Amino acid sequence: MTTEKSTAEDFDPSPGASEKYDVTVLRLGHRLVRDERISTHVGLVSRAFGAKRLILTGADDHTVDSLRRLSTRWGGGFQAEYVKNWRDFVRHWQGTSVHLTMYGEDLRNGIDRLKKDKARKILVVIGAEKVPKEIYTLVDLNIAVGNQPHSEVAALAVFLDRLFMGEELYTTFGNARLRVKPSLRGKKVEFVKNEN
Amino acid sequence: MTTEKSTAEDFDPSPGASEKYDVTVLRLGHRLVRDERISTHVGLVSRAFGAKRLILTGADDHTVDSLRRLSTRWGGGFQAEYVKNWRDFVRHWQGTSVHLTMYGEDLRNGIDRLKKDKARKILVVIGAEKVPKEIYTLVDLNIAVGNQPHSEVAALAVFLDRLFMGEELYTTFGNARLRVKPSLRGKKVEFVKNEN
Repeated sequence: MTTEKSTAEDFDPSPGASEKYDVTVLRLGHRLVRDERISTHVGLVSRAFGAKRLILTGADDHTVDSLRRLSTRWGGGFQAEYVKNWRDFVRHWQGTSVHLTMYGEDLRNGIDRLKKDKARKILVVIGAEKVPKEIYTLVDLNIAVGNQPHSEVAALAVFLDRLFMGEELYTTFGNARLRVKPSLRGKKVEFVKNEN
Repeated sequence: MTTEKSTAEDFDPSPGASEKYDVTVLRLGHRLVRDERISTHVGLVSRAFGAKRLILTGADDHTVDSLRRLSTRWGGGFQAEYVKNWRDFVRHWQGTSVHLTMYGEDLRNGIDRLKKDKARKILVVIGAEKVPKEIYTLVDLNIAVGNQPHSEVAALAVFLDRLFMGEELYTTFGNARLRVKPSLRGKKVEFVKNEN
């Protein structure tokens, strides 16, 4: 399955932050089992921080299914799918492509550049421990969320938080079955029925 | 090994963000193998985003060793260790304790409160998928980095990024053997010799 033919119109965007940018996250280097939990974190962060879609490479496993089940419970139009050929996917991207890496240019400069260039449809590429060298030249921008080794999950979250200027945390996810009631002590969840 | 007797004076803080707050991260629910990679991400994020120390619970494995090796290469005084009794550790914490959870109060309010209260020594508690209920009442504050399910790695990074107002990404890590030279294309790393 490839997704080059998908367009932004296929999505049911959640109102809020995701209106400002149409963000797709491409996770490279996903291998079976070993990376499943990290990829799940990447998917959850993508959704919670305002991205519309996660693209995984490699063979199918439980990650896509579990993200879909979660979206049904917690709402919103987030999509998760696989592509076989990530090189073609990046090459044919109609928009701006950004690779998050500890070796790139400063985060503040990178975000400023995206805003100055009025980027709207953004592909955020994140790797696992090792990424193919060619990704550095395939993308438009290499952006570093700090120059210390840390985590693609963290890099993605902080990048999106800066891009959306914190607004992504206040997004309403439509058609949710569950919703949290913020509280000082303990867990409060409400069950949403017949929202429409 | 318990660390209740450790004090801030035991650390060699990296100059920069970590001067403003003395942050220790406590990772609950670390179990063998299954959580090793996530715990490593938590540790790397703690270090890269200005915390001084990671405390893991549960049995010993490779996580602490790999974090120590990394700190030797990339510099700074970050510490990682185990405690057996995390309840006592939280109860006896001399400072402010914060639990990051999707069920807590709004992040902005929480950070404002920490600043208003002039919190200086902060324990940041993060769980795995499930946390013991009592943690909600053991800590001073439950703070939600958004109310959607995502990742403790992301929650920690965004919390620290907001707390340090982005300055943590510009911390200099002393006695590093390796240092990244930010660049628009590709990987540039310099080897640091005889820094002292």
